Amino acid sequence: MVKIVAEEEGIQNKKSNFSEWFHEVIEKAGIIDQRYPLQGFLVYPWYGFAIHESCMRILEGLLDRTGHKKCYFPPLIPERLIKKEAEHIHGFEDEVFWVTQAGKNPMEERCALRPTSETVMYEMLKLWIRSHRDLPVKIYQSTSVFRYETKHTRPLIRDREILWNEAHTSHATAGKAAKQIEEGVAIYQELFDKIAVPVKFFDVMVGVFAGAAGAVEPYTVFPDGRVVEMGSVNNLGQRFSKAFDVKFAREDGSEEHVYQTCYGVSERMTAAIVALHGDDKGLVLPPSVAPTQVVIVPIYNNKTKKAVISYAQNVCKKLCCCMRVEVDAHEECTPGWKFNHYEMLGVPLRVEIGPKEAKGKSVTIVSRIDGKKETVKLAGVEKTVCKKLDDAQKVMLEHAKKTQQTNDVGGMSELKNIIGTKGGFVRVGWCGGKECADWIKSETKGGEIIGTLHGKSEKPAGKVGKCIYCGKKAEHVVYVANMY
Amino acid sequence: MVKIVAEEEGIQNKKSNFSEWFHEVIEKAGIIDQRYPLQGFLVYPWYGFAIHESCMRILEGLLDRTGHKKCYFPPLIPERLIKKEAEHIHGFEDEVFWVTQAGKNPMEERCALRPTSETVMYEMLKLWIRSHRDLPVKIYQSTSVFRYETKHTRPLIRDREILWNEAHTSHATAGKAAKQIEEGVAIYQELFDKIAVPVKFFDVMVGVFAGAAGAVEPYTVFPDGRVVEMGSVNNLGQRFSKAFDVKFAREDGSEEHVYQTCYGVSERMTAAIVALHGDDKGLVLPPSVAPTQVVIVPIYNNKTKKAVISYAQNVCKKLCCCMRVEVDAHEECTPGWKFNHYEMLGVPLRVEIGPKEAKGKSVTIVSRIDGKKETVKLAGVEKTVCKKLDDAQKVMLEHAKKTQQTNDVGGMSELKNIIGTKGGFVRVGWCGGKECADWIKSETKGGEIIGTLHGKSEKPAGKVGKCIYCGKKAEHVVYVANMY
Repeated sequence: MVKIVAEEEGIQNKKSNFSEWFHEVIEKAGIIDQRYPLQGFLVYPWYGFAIHESCMRILEGLLDRTGHKKCYFPPLIPERLIKKEAEHIHGFEDEVFWVTQAGKNPMEERCALRPTSETVMYEMLKLWIRSHRDLPVKIYQSTSVFRYETKHTRPLIRDREILWNEAHTSHATAGKAAKQIEEGVAIYQELFDKIAVPVKFFDVMVGVFAGAAGAVEPYTVFPDGRVVEMGSVNNLGQRFSKAFDVKFAREDGSEEHVYQTCYGVSERMTAAIVALHGDDKGLVLPPSVAPTQVVIVPIYNNKTKKAVISYAQNVCKKLCCCMRVEVDAHEECTPGWKFNHYEMLGVPLRVEIGPKEAKGKSVTIVSRIDGKKETVKLAGVEKTVCKKLDDAQKVMLEHAKKTQQTNDVGGMSELKNIIGTKGGFVRVGWCGGKECADWIKSETKGGEIIGTLHGKSEKPAGKVGKCIYCGKKAEHVVYVANMY
Repeated sequence: MVKIVAEEEGIQNKKSNFSEWFHEVIEKAGIIDQRYPLQGFLVYPWYGFAIHESCMRILEGLLDRTGHKKCYFPPLIPERLIKKEAEHIHGFEDEVFWVTQAGKNPMEERCALRPTSETVMYEMLKLWIRSHRDLPVKIYQSTSVFRYETKHTRPLIRDREILWNEAHTSHATAGKAAKQIEEGVAIYQELFDKIAVPVKFFDVMVGVFAGAAGAVEPYTVFPDGRVVEMGSVNNLGQRFSKAFDVKFAREDGSEEHVYQTCYGVSERMTAAIVALHGDDKGLVLPPSVAPTQVVIVPIYNNKTKKAVISYAQNVCKKLCCCMRVEVDAHEECTPGWKFNHYEMLGVPLRVEIGPKEAKGKSVTIVSRIDGKKETVKLAGVEKTVCKKLDDAQKVMLEHAKKTQQTNDVGGMSELKNIIGTKGGFVRVGWCGGKECADWIKSETKGGEIIGTLHGKSEKPAGKVGKCIYCGKKAEHVVYVANMY
């Protein structure tokens, strides 16, 4: 099979050079291959794609459970459709890839490759929704979208093909749409918890999705102190339903346009898992998304070979009913090489089996997170290993939470200093003026106001009681960060 | 939720007008929606997409089990890549959609939307394969491909966006590639058995994939007697590996180009399931792919409502651990409407629960296939229903096999008659001459030689001992059919 190359010489130091470390790890662990000759388009070898699909399966489970239905819509959007909502096309017109030719001839009407699917889906919702009895409609798809990013592309963070999941809902009232926003936020909170990526949700003030009335977005802090937007939950109001004429009849027969929301997350899930948990030996994967959760490495010589391998297979059989486990009995690599290899791949647990274990009916378990080694009895090994995986999952989320620093700051020089050094979220007071926001951005060289914490009304007081720039009474407590 | 519309007035007669029946059923049962304003691009509402995904999950399980690894490759192919293999681009050049613009500017190099992924994947395999130890490489992806069909499009049979799975393998020797072809055939045979679609595999003589050295293809007979190609398993030899310079080093250090195969199946799986099993009440779904395998319909009046619904929920709880089951307790529809509705949707089993069942601790089970009704005890109902689903699955495949008629024919007038009326596979003798093949096609108005039966050397003798057209000694026993 295609080799996942774990080179012997080791990798970059994560702490001193996060960006190079990140690029090296995602290539060496087989998460992606950047050598496809088209900028911003990644190839996902099986290991990286399996991690992405694990994240997607977790999300799809949560969406199914809450009554969302998985559908499929075409990726080509005739120009007249994508132009129906003016602000929407305006937001995307510099980023759209256009299909203009079919075979040897120009197409009658050029088509956009979907940069997002509102305009595809809502053209159909117009036909599907008739009455209040049809509502709510909650649908989603897991596909990719295409955006000609003019900014510097970064693998898994800013690509021109984005592997994502987008959900779209339609409701009878603004109140119901607002409630749906909270369901979307709750789904994403559970998703990110399950993949061990801590996030904070903000009511965002800048960069709201083109065509949306408001947005709630989850953010996480990367190890270099910069902050990454991990998705968005958008309240679309009636803007699109009016443009696409998606109406329903009330019980009394009167008609109204539906109220809509949409939310999406992308391959940045994988980026965050790599960034938050990896170390100088490579990946560290949460068991929930690890393609292999447990690797069994038999250690033997010619004399002990038969007994050790047969015992290892036996252990594998016991474990395989409740976890993703494999035995690596390849002859051509040493146990030492295998240890390094599976550490690079971030396999959560390694089970070492030598003659001692085979004889004593035991197994030696080594954790990828902390390198701790423990020899346990074969009897009940399924339970022991399951428990260790559960514990690893919890510990990883808790550990990552501790890296999500938030500092309260009351003055510009301290803000400049923090944004320029350790980064993270910085909590400040703000008067609400656009000028002050602009000054904050330019003076900190990149520190931007994300927004207010979602679901919690934080009162300006104390250190964050005054606008950090003009010193007037603060209207909002906002979070500033240097964003990817 | 979006309604699946089962109109009261009934549908077309399948036997007398198969084509109209098919179009009506796929729309009414929510398999696809053809109203998206771009020809040949289908929208899949949740019900149809769930059936497609069930087929895909079955296939992916078979591919995983045989060591294929799921990857993801971009859908955009720079022109210079897709042109590397001359015969390949020649075969597709009239069908390729081209992306030529990004934002407001023309792209430096235009890109094809993948019509198939050889040229994307093999550019990477060149980098991934180094040594004989890397082989075999067996990868696949489940995505869509795009072909600007100039022929009349037909939903689920000839679309411009094709939802498919494509597997690609590389080997050290021609012999190993030939063996892989047999693995591909075996995987597809098992897949089609599992989705209750009987197929015959042929070594095809016409329409071999552009760039392939040979192909084995599964075909099935539709109820109108026309035959549908259900996929293909292609032996690519070294044609692509030479064009893309995919080489490996042998143990002795010498280098050679790899030997490749590729195989794919598409949304035609859903088309065949609908076509082969549906009836004048709508779909009939094999349990293996049915989004809902069992629907429980409570039947009550105001007095019995509480007891009946609570009992129905209880039955559902018992069944839900081992099958996809739901209770439809909606107030606004009558049980009669529901019966029709779930018959249209092809749900394999209906469980009727009224006061009699609730009182007697029993359930009444009605089979979608034959309408047979049976009242059974609640105790052990899981086993009873599982058994009924298993039986239905088997009966459906056996039933469909009986529709796959093959007739031996020795003369042109009989051939013309069969091709023009009941259709199916027609077994004839053929001298091997192209002229005779052309005459067969023109005289039968569409009857084409598919090829010889794969894996079975059928000797020309008796009725099929002479070429059906020229009367000379037959070289091959071939199958003729009118193809979609």
